Amino acid sequence: MEKIPSEIQLQKETIRIETFSDGVFCIAVTLLSIEIGVELHGDVTDKILTHALLAKWPIYLAYVISFVNVLLAWIGHHSLFKMLHKSDNSILITNGLLLMLVALVPFPTKTLGEFLLTDGFKTAVIFYTGYFVLISIAFRLLWYAATGKAGILMTGITEKQIKQTTRNENIGLICNAIIFAVAFGNPWLALALSFAMWVYWLVFA
Amino acid sequence: MEKIPSEIQLQKETIRIETFSDGVFCIAVTLLSIEIGVELHGDVTDKILTHALLAKWPIYLAYVISFVNVLLAWIGHHSLFKMLHKSDNSILITNGLLLMLVALVPFPTKTLGEFLLTDGFKTAVIFYTGYFVLISIAFRLLWYAATGKAGILMTGITEKQIKQTTRNENIGLICNAIIFAVAFGNPWLALALSFAMWVYWLVFA
Amino acid sequence: MEKIPSEIQLQKETIRIETFSDGVFCIAVTLLSIEIGVELHGDVTDKILTHALLAKWPIYLAYVISFVNVLLAWIGHHSLFKMLHKSDNSILITNGLLLMLVALVPFPTKTLGEFLLTDGFKTAVIFYTGYFVLISIAFRLLWYAATGKAGILMTGITEKQIKQTTRNENIGLICNAIIFAVAFGNPWLALALSFAMWVYWLVFA
Amino acid sequence: MEKIPSEIQLQKETIRIETFSDGVFCIAVTLLSIEIGVELHGDVTDKILTHALLAKWPIYLAYVISFVNVLLAWIGHHSLFKMLHKSDNSILITNGLLLMLVALVPFPTKTLGEFLLTDGFKTAVIFYTGYFVLISIAFRLLWYAATGKAGILMTGITEKQIKQTTRNENIGLICNAIIFAVAFGNPWLALALSFAMWVYWLVFA
Repeated sequence: MEKIPSEIQLQKETIRIETFSDGVFCIAVTLLSIEIGVELHGDVTDKILTHALLAKWPIYLAYVISFVNVLLAWIGHHSLFKMLHKSDNSILITNGLLLMLVALVPFPTKTLGEFLLTDGFKTAVIFYTGYFVLISIAFRLLWYAATGKAGILMTGITEKQIKQTTRNENIGLICNAIIFAVAFGNPWLALALSFAMWVYWLVFA
Repeated sequence: MEKIPSEIQLQKETIRIETFSDGVFCIAVTLLSIEIGVELHGDVTDKILTHALLAKWPIYLAYVISFVNVLLAWIGHHSLFKMLHKSDNSILITNGLLLMLVALVPFPTKTLGEFLLTDGFKTAVIFYTGYFVLISIAFRLLWYAATGKAGILMTGITEKQIKQTTRNENIGLICNAIIFAVAFGNPWLALALSFAMWVYWLVFA
Repeated sequence: MEKIPSEIQLQKETIRIETFSDGVFCIAVTLLSIEIGVELHGDVTDKILTHALLAKWPIYLAYVISFVNVLLAWIGHHSLFKMLHKSDNSILITNGLLLMLVALVPFPTKTLGEFLLTDGFKTAVIFYTGYFVLISIAFRLLWYAATGKAGILMTGITEKQIKQTTRNENIGLICNAIIFAVAFGNPWLALALSFAMWVYWLVFA
Repeated sequence: MEKIPSEIQLQKETIRIETFSDGVFCIAVTLLSIEIGVELHGDVTDKILTHALLAKWPIYLAYVISFVNVLLAWIGHHSLFKMLHKSDNSILITNGLLLMLVALVPFPTKTLGEFLLTDGFKTAVIFYTGYFVLISIAFRLLWYAATGKAGILMTGITEKQIKQTTRNENIGLICNAIIFAVAFGNPWLALALSFAMWVYWLVFA
């Protein structure tokens, strides 16, 4: 049990942080479902239950949107960590901030689903889209932490790759900010744009 | 820290997606238990508590059925991923769809358990069995994604193995569709058939 | 990507089942805490909150007992799986049964905590201790499945080790059955015996 | 499948315990978010929803404080386990105690968030800060278990490293005890000190 070479040790630490982060993404995405259910009092008939199940469509919609968003965030997180050679305090703090936001995604999701059909709809969409602006900012800060100092990124990473990732992170942040701004004027358009952005990510990335 | 050979890298990516999927299956199956409990107000005696515990049998039945279903889905998912050499966007999307459905299994389970003894019983069984038709379809799409393009499956996989898996996937989908159809006429028969299908899987697969 | 030697493949399958099982144990143990909380309506003062927090002691006691029980079950599960060379259908089924019970431990725990101070106390203890008899039986069946056929256990395992494990499993089952029987006459004594059993396991195993 | 050399086996056992512990930390931290949500009855307007979301700030504050605390505890736990060569019963028991406390962090967190704006505020802060004194004690006991006997720590660990960790553990315990004591006099100051302690850990550790 001699001293482990520090290079491998550093790499192992980074993998460890990533494994922990993966766990948070995985639990957050599965917890989205936890409060989805139908509650009925009094006599229940097939007709009443069918209506109750169908009436919950905003909850299902919010679930699907958040599931895809968290899954895309996980893929983005993984792409970013694949480039890291080691981690330092700034990585730890910015990644911690990101995880803190990801773990709380069930909250804006629930809010969106519950209030989509009320007159509080605009507020719910603003809250939801604003929340993903925060997540984009946390991603951007993590990438700053990764590129701000020498020796954090793997030596094989080229300038071109760095620029491309920076560009992708910036596009993500700007798109989310635009969607957030649109939500103040037209909440439905904001949700539609959010959906269009997925298609973009899934087809081009 | 030179460039990792892309063959191993591709394999590692696939393992990573599978680990994440395993996490979702594992959490989904454990979350099934989360709302099971007895609530009593006023004076509680041994007799009242015993009756309350026994009266929850539909909830326990739904728990057992879903636990076995998700466990079988996990085994099927694993058999499928064992054949993958690498993953691409179609794998990612179809697998994401499958996970989205698996993570939400607590919802139809809860619905089945809660409304099994009400007049909304048929609707609950239709919803439950229909949900597993969706899961079968997601599995089928994932297998399409795996076999539709060259280079996704491992080179060791023979034509015969592929045909056998396709056959198994189709049988699973057809069985679930039949059970779903039966549920419209005779919900109890549908649940019994669902149970018979497990025995088939556990004995023959 | 040639065919992987079947020996290693078998071993890998067993590790995979164990990892999944570990996940279920880990989530089940952490979910025990999920509904613990104090709810107060109207004006809350320091005195009221202090009393409310202290009055929940049966919930805390149930949490501690279950946490230790699940942790001990995890250690037992791990010792058992360390001896397995490969797994087959009987292992899969008996292990699935065990996990199904472990994942539902929050239910008897909650019941014990909630009704410890009511007149339904005896029923709650009978339910709780009976539940752990079921878990012991599942363990015993898993061990049957491991020893009933040749080739499941690792070749390094001696007859003596097998006998010792069989003896431990039997002692565990008998102890839990005795505690269960005692619960019908004297619930508090049953809980005390349960506690004494831990000390035995922690000191001698 | 010969007997695995006991050295590697011991190391593997330690890794296994750490993986399980990581799971508990990861789930506990993600579960913090589970009950955060806004419930509104009657007509909901944008104004009402906005106010309801903003009024929940103590819940958000409690979430952030606990998330950071659990994350720091995870980092501390990992640093400690990195030094372990093998584990024994004392490690198992003290680590189990620590996990039992970590898994229950959502409870004091919820209590702090819910009663921060009530007259039960002081009790909530005392409970919360006292809870983290317990966690510090569990950490201290784990470290006692690691250093009390020869052969538990890795051979590469120097006396200096041991002393430094002992010092860190002691400082952590004393700080948490002081914060706890302050909470009896000035709860807000206690929360501010708690925050200051993070900055210390994040900058100096």
